[in-house]
Amino acid sequence: MADLKSTFLKVYSDLKSELLQDPSFEFTDDSREWVERMLNYNVPGGKLNRGLSVIDSYKLLKEGKELSEEELFLASALGWCVEWLQAYFLVLDDIMDNSHTRRGQPCWFRLPKVGLIAVNDGILLRNHIGRILRKHFRGKPYYVDLLDLFNEVEFQTASGQMIDLITTLEGEKDLSKYSLSKHRRIVQYKTAYYSFYLPVACALLMSGENLENHIDVKNILVDMGIYFQVQDDYLDCFGAPETIGKIGTDIEDFKCSWLVVKALEVCNEDQKKALYENYGKPDPSNVANVKALYNELNLEGVFADFESKSYEKLITSIEAHPSKPVQAVLKSFLAKIYKRQK
Amino acid sequence: MADLKSTFLKVYSDLKSELLQDPSFEFTDDSREWVERMLNYNVPGGKLNRGLSVIDSYKLLKEGKELSEEELFLASALGWCVEWLQAYFLVLDDIMDNSHTRRGQPCWFRLPKVGLIAVNDGILLRNHIGRILRKHFRGKPYYVDLLDLFNEVEFQTASGQMIDLITTLEGEKDLSKYSLSKHRRIVQYKTAYYSFYLPVACALLMSGENLENHIDVKNILVDMGIYFQVQDDYLDCFGAPETIGKIGTDIEDFKCSWLVVKALEVCNEDQKKALYENYGKPDPSNVANVKALYNELNLEGVFADFESKSYEKLITSIEAHPSKPVQAVLKSFLAKIYKRQK
Repeated sequence: MADLKSTFLKVYSDLKSELLQDPSFEFTDDSREWVERMLNYNVPGGKLNRGLSVIDSYKLLKEGKELSEEELFLASALGWCVEWLQAYFLVLDDIMDNSHTRRGQPCWFRLPKVGLIAVNDGILLRNHIGRILRKHFRGKPYYVDLLDLFNEVEFQTASGQMIDLITTLEGEKDLSKYSLSKHRRIVQYKTAYYSFYLPVACALLMSGENLENHIDVKNILVDMGIYFQVQDDYLDCFGAPETIGKIGTDIEDFKCSWLVVKALEVCNEDQKKALYENYGKPDPSNVANVKALYNELNLEGVFADFESKSYEKLITSIEAHPSKPVQAVLKSFLAKIYKRQK
Repeated sequence: MADLKSTFLKVYSDLKSELLQDPSFEFTDDSREWVERMLNYNVPGGKLNRGLSVIDSYKLLKEGKELSEEELFLASALGWCVEWLQAYFLVLDDIMDNSHTRRGQPCWFRLPKVGLIAVNDGILLRNHIGRILRKHFRGKPYYVDLLDLFNEVEFQTASGQMIDLITTLEGEKDLSKYSLSKHRRIVQYKTAYYSFYLPVACALLMSGENLENHIDVKNILVDMGIYFQVQDDYLDCFGAPETIGKIGTDIEDFKCSWLVVKALEVCNEDQKKALYENYGKPDPSNVANVKALYNELNLEGVFADFESKSYEKLITSIEAHPSKPVQAVLKSFLAKIYKRQK
């Protein structure tokens, strides 16, 4: 695994070098340095789970047959395209959310020399995906499907971000606008497609599969992505900051979190009043009141129940799938996130 | 021509309706309204020259043969893709440049309800291009070339925007960093590819041409785009505000304009000192001093000379092209901009 990660990181260096020599643009020294710094700051510093899972999935689809050097490179390159997409979303989301830190360092746009140039850097990150795909996949029979896939998933993610932003605008005025169905829709579009479906879809395309024959796989992965995001919302409040690596601020930030929509669903009138009075305020005493309410409503127990039910449903769906290698891909994904603490 | 424009605008309505019913995303009423408002505000309000020129070019390539209804629709759809791309760049550029007005109305991000949600709206605009192309061109033999074309041109434009932003950061510290070669590079990448090459390339692809056989057409259109942007820089200072529809602020904004790099090239030491002292300052007296200097240096004459030489060079290149219909496309483009006052 450590070895796979270092192979994967080596491919990052190769792709970066190619991008910095792209013949479609005459770099100056300044601009080449800028792009290199921007890439190093924003692309490789995460957990790399999404990217690595393209390689994992492809291996499982090959049923243990050893990958050729070319296959390993191409699966890694697709993995990096997913990571590049993630970096693009994060750079721009941080601007829109006015965030301060990301992956333990200041957000890119917070650097004094960067500022709103970060908007254009985000665009460049997105464009690099097209450059990587064109350079390494132009001759493959699935090239056009890769372009369509990245385009569709990006569209869905941006649409999810839109409903998140609009819902938060309205929720800030009236908390009752938040609901489980809105939460589900936001999470499905904003997170699930690109984090769960996209890596597996890349591996399927590389294996010569037609994605239209794998709508069931997409549906399972989208459900898994929703389950993942509910965990995220849960850990934001109940996770150990030293384990999850950040201090959650969903309550202060008026987020349409699974916890607040569950709370709204199960609370009585007095509790609802307390929630309205305390949610979305920066004062620590308001935050403490919300957390006390969450405890009163036993949201930890509600979550544990949700977690085990989600797991069982997912396992049932996965085992109904006709292909054993596809089952293996989906189970491997699920094993990585079930009962995660970070 | 008025008729062509109204046909073109009808296609905008059709494309918009399709996007608002896109099966890849479950719209809520709120989000559908948001996107519709955003599109109406940002997409159709410009001069539409870039979009209309796809249709014009395609007609000329067909040498007067009447277009079928399908051809007219497809050429219009490609024209709108170019306009969508333009809207995407403008929405995001206005954020990065901290602009106030655009096409006679407040910039989209300046609307109180919008703010930095405009970043995501920009992304949506870009994504709509992929949706339009997929819906209407997926079965065409040139589909993958269209995707590659839009990807490459977007990459070049974003790269041009990057060197513009970096150059301005440095120019603000030291005006001597501005030069004619930097100006040319910025303009080539930031403006020429998408405004001049892209519309013609779309028409060529629709006509069944391979773009690799038309590098000479690309080079001519890039030169034309550079000439166009020099006009733009000239009109920003010397144009009549009531004709160009805005009051230029390149001098105040420390822009790497063709005028300032020409001035730097031809001025003596005293004049250079005056330029350093007055360029990039908001005070009207500083601006007036710069304009006085431009007059002293006879930049109007220098520009007139540049304009006629550019025209002659372009005509010579165009007439060297082996294809009469391609010549017609290029001459029609040039005729639209030669000696323009707005």
